[in-house]
Amino acid sequence: MHIVEILLVEAPHKPGYMAKVLGVVGNFGATVEGLNAVRRLDKETIWEVTLEYDDSLNINELFDEINLLPDTSITGKSDRVFNRHKNGKIKTVSSINIDSLEILRDVYTPGVARVCQAIQESPKKIKDFTNLQNTVAIVTNGTAILGLGDIGPEAGLPVMEGKAAILAELVGLSGVPILLKEKDPLKIIEVVEAISSSFGAILLEDIKAPECFTIEEELIDRVNKPVFHDDQHGTAMVVLAALLSATKQQNINLKDRVFGQIGLGAAGMGICNLLLEYGVKDVVGCDLDQEAQKKLRGLGGNPMSLQEVMATADVVVATTGVKGLIKPDMVREGQIIMALSNPDPEIEPNVAIEHGASFATCGKVVNNMLAFPGLFKGTLAADVSKITHSMKIAVSETLSQLAKDGALVPAALNKEVHDRVAEAVYQAAIKQKNEFL
Amino acid sequence: MHIVEILLVEAPHKPGYMAKVLGVVGNFGATVEGLNAVRRLDKETIWEVTLEYDDSLNINELFDEINLLPDTSITGKSDRVFNRHKNGKIKTVSSINIDSLEILRDVYTPGVARVCQAIQESPKKIKDFTNLQNTVAIVTNGTAILGLGDIGPEAGLPVMEGKAAILAELVGLSGVPILLKEKDPLKIIEVVEAISSSFGAILLEDIKAPECFTIEEELIDRVNKPVFHDDQHGTAMVVLAALLSATKQQNINLKDRVFGQIGLGAAGMGICNLLLEYGVKDVVGCDLDQEAQKKLRGLGGNPMSLQEVMATADVVVATTGVKGLIKPDMVREGQIIMALSNPDPEIEPNVAIEHGASFATCGKVVNNMLAFPGLFKGTLAADVSKITHSMKIAVSETLSQLAKDGALVPAALNKEVHDRVAEAVYQAAIKQKNEFL
Repeated sequence: MHIVEILLVEAPHKPGYMAKVLGVVGNFGATVEGLNAVRRLDKETIWEVTLEYDDSLNINELFDEINLLPDTSITGKSDRVFNRHKNGKIKTVSSINIDSLEILRDVYTPGVARVCQAIQESPKKIKDFTNLQNTVAIVTNGTAILGLGDIGPEAGLPVMEGKAAILAELVGLSGVPILLKEKDPLKIIEVVEAISSSFGAILLEDIKAPECFTIEEELIDRVNKPVFHDDQHGTAMVVLAALLSATKQQNINLKDRVFGQIGLGAAGMGICNLLLEYGVKDVVGCDLDQEAQKKLRGLGGNPMSLQEVMATADVVVATTGVKGLIKPDMVREGQIIMALSNPDPEIEPNVAIEHGASFATCGKVVNNMLAFPGLFKGTLAADVSKITHSMKIAVSETLSQLAKDGALVPAALNKEVHDRVAEAVYQAAIKQKNEFL
Repeated sequence: MHIVEILLVEAPHKPGYMAKVLGVVGNFGATVEGLNAVRRLDKETIWEVTLEYDDSLNINELFDEINLLPDTSITGKSDRVFNRHKNGKIKTVSSINIDSLEILRDVYTPGVARVCQAIQESPKKIKDFTNLQNTVAIVTNGTAILGLGDIGPEAGLPVMEGKAAILAELVGLSGVPILLKEKDPLKIIEVVEAISSSFGAILLEDIKAPECFTIEEELIDRVNKPVFHDDQHGTAMVVLAALLSATKQQNINLKDRVFGQIGLGAAGMGICNLLLEYGVKDVVGCDLDQEAQKKLRGLGGNPMSLQEVMATADVVVATTGVKGLIKPDMVREGQIIMALSNPDPEIEPNVAIEHGASFATCGKVVNNMLAFPGLFKGTLAADVSKITHSMKIAVSETLSQLAKDGALVPAALNKEVHDRVAEAVYQAAIKQKNEFL
């Protein structure tokens, strides 16, 4: 795992001293991300040196060697990642400055009573006069946090806050982390249902398979609001976008090709599901788990072995978390391969290309934060109670259209991208709403 | 109920025209809160006229009469209270601008994984690297919203958002409204317990008596975090503060006098409880409900009839919601009377004084928002799991000390007051924590 650390280094204000420091860093195989003079003393300068290194590196030896340089010493250290997480990444703020009694009496008692009564008489007004329709619960039980596994909901809170911060920054929605110390799917369903009035929509996050399937399905049935498990569908939407771009670049039609999914966990199953709904006729997939195989068959796909998938599919996506699972000799001429496990893919893209793949990429390009912010923004704006396949496909198509200069998907922090995704989702939702009328 | 409405009035830019408009307003018994010229046209001026009136007024007749004035017309109307509630009063924001990939990779994947692991290894770090210890759930089932009664949790959301906005503005805490469509106390307890890992503390709000007592007691037992029902204790702390100020002004010692509580609902029971803990030896009270009478006896007080309370008590507080319940001839010479029901007190202060009370006031002076923000701020800063009586009494004593110029309590929007309350609560909590060690 990569660590970013900031050193404060004091060295004489003379030529060549920092070169020696950077020489030590380079010799150890660490990289310098930034170098700034932060303070000039009488004869010395204090430098801030931002290092990036793998946690397998014995960093203390590097520090010792810097301290052995003439007149040079490390006077302080800090970890940029932890600095940026200090006191958390989100907060609730008031939308209005409450700085006079007049305002207070309007937003709180006695004024607020009239707003309450207006909502009581006409419940839909809750969407006009509260923040409800901008609020998304981000619910986890901590059983599948990133690639870390079951570390519990509290250790997962930094991820939930991260998602909330992204929702706030990119589309102005209010995310609310909800941590459940509970593994029984039925109890999770009951609790989320019980609190569902508090939110405009529910984002299920980092709940492990297979429980995540039941929990999502049942909540979609019980709660008359959008419920969405990002690990299944968020990744799937971005993968479909990347596949649309890659197949377009290769001048082939995705719908007519055999698609092979390696690994049928939350993400893999979501990908198969979305591709089938998109119109891919032939979906094959593999997983050691028999329940997962059965589930794929239920969706309309064909379970088979890893070797068979590699021998059959024109387009392959792998989401197993198993480094090097795809052996070079399994690759077929002209195959499109996306080996998405982070940080180590099932096969390195250059190795796949060397063995005949026409296109190969790894997980770094598939960032699921491209999908969920705009999806929720558009869904809540359209005021619909379900997130349908056509809304998800609108996300993928928009992302693929907005990819530039040979990239598969657009840049994740481009707000215009998220606005365009939201707009596409909104239009798809409204179209479907009108069809039902 | 009072309504504040803003009219846009177009009238010639000549002397005397607005005088006529204000004349009509006055004739109807409405008051003008503000008058601003917002736009100057060729010959006319557009004025913004802010009116306050009772909802018993037939306001349309007033509007008609203004429109009948020469060359004068109402061109628009808006309701200031509803304007200020538009799209809600709170939102979640990111504490850090996510405007570069470097920042994104630190606050989200891959950087966030190390923060998750740090919390997994050392669970207390959740308080350093997330917003958890600044987060307060504001939980209601909507059964006793303000004086409106059981209007349901969704119609109560504007109040919960109001509390969250106040927490954010006055002490920088993050309030999270949680709405429960549930009346069974056991189920409410189970759901709140299930989500309690998500928050640093739990504020129960506008849940009706007697269920509120069981819910709070049981949650305090089950959840290892501060749990607090504001309707019981928030009002009680501010009432005790006001009583400390009033008795000091009258030069008497509250602890030595007979205290009488009229109405033993959530607020009344909270007041009796706090006064007994404060050291008042003789607490009497009345309520038509027999369970409430039994509960008072359990606390160490004496239930009796309304007449007996008025005949016995030196200091009387009423929280019944019944206008005019205290008849003038019940008042005894030298009594201190706080008739707190809003908007219509159990006895008007001037009437009580006329009939011999040495001091009388009504509910407008007892604003419970003086207590809860600082109480939560201090409790969370001290990182204690219970809110004790000594912490509540610290709130009351601080508020009374900070009251100025004959007032009973300080101004509600003074941030320094809330900081001082937080500090006093923090000190009381730390003192108690050390005593337990």
